[in-house]
Amino acid sequence: MSFQKEKNEFLCKKDKSKKGSIDIKIKNLVDKINSFDDFFTTSSCSGRILLIAQHKSGRKDKAEWLFSSHNKINFKKIKSKKSLEKLPKKDVWFKMEPAIVHIACKNFENASKLLNLARNIGFRRSGIISIGKNRLILELISTEKLDAIIGKNGKLLVNESYFKILIRESNKKLEKTWEKINRLHKSL
Amino acid sequence: MSFQKEKNEFLCKKDKSKKGSIDIKIKNLVDKINSFDDFFTTSSCSGRILLIAQHKSGRKDKAEWLFSSHNKINFKKIKSKKSLEKLPKKDVWFKMEPAIVHIACKNFENASKLLNLARNIGFRRSGIISIGKNRLILELISTEKLDAIIGKNGKLLVNESYFKILIRESNKKLEKTWEKINRLHKSL
Repeated sequence: MSFQKEKNEFLCKKDKSKKGSIDIKIKNLVDKINSFDDFFTTSSCSGRILLIAQHKSGRKDKAEWLFSSHNKINFKKIKSKKSLEKLPKKDVWFKMEPAIVHIACKNFENASKLLNLARNIGFRRSGIISIGKNRLILELISTEKLDAIIGKNGKLLVNESYFKILIRESNKKLEKTWEKINRLHKSL
Repeated sequence: MSFQKEKNEFLCKKDKSKKGSIDIKIKNLVDKINSFDDFFTTSSCSGRILLIAQHKSGRKDKAEWLFSSHNKINFKKIKSKKSLEKLPKKDVWFKMEPAIVHIACKNFENASKLLNLARNIGFRRSGIISIGKNRLILELISTEKLDAIIGKNGKLLVNESYFKILIRESNKKLEKTWEKINRLHKSL
């Protein structure tokens, strides 16, 4: 199948993400990338704040999602979800994850150009992650992150004031990751 | 310059890392990779536990390193460094970082094979990060991580019992990252 045909088919498919739609904060960037003949995006996230109960195996696909937000949050919001009252008897982690975009690329030349551009802007965890017959997959990931364990055996390990600091730091990191998305969009 | 010549010159150069030598836990893997004609490693880390005072800019190269260990640690050890008594008036983060290896590769074919192998073993943050005339650079990174702010304005934000939990989790993650190094070594 030609790259163009694959692109058309992919972009018509239903969004298979948990959220079911593209994050508004990254939509302009995604649209811009898709406006080029040699690229199409296969997934994206504008960065998020998560509360996750880990599976014993540590496997990400088996983790239980207690809370998730693509926007800045406050303690009230996370408390109102009742996720803190009845913590599962597992390791519970509070996380902030950076912006990420997966891009199918027609050739090495343009993949390499976009990769260099993105890395220089601050998407420092980026690379070509798979090489297929007709296309490469480029993964762009920014660097903002926070990973703190906050629950164990059903008990909260941190007090409210420390939890609020974790939330404040995560909100700051979300803003940083959004700035990088905008800078990449402008530079394309 | 031929790939082979570049490889010979690089492997004779002085180690420019902070530590000045290859971590013992990753040496077998590095030696194995360097035994293949089409690869040579340019840097590596077997995973580490860090205490870092962040620069206002957030720039990693301007951060102040208060503590660093490639081995498992305990609270006594980190306390004995006096790093906790006189915290700088900056944001201080406790971090665990996973194993990482940078590999110069002669061609796409073998880079792609090694990339797939490593990703399947659990080096899920891996990719080709630069494409030069004579070589590619492949970055293999595992997934273990912990990033928690523990100090602000010279004050410790967490109590001893929570700090010990962070240390215990980091130690567990170091072991996981070492297992992955061994698995990759065995599969090559």
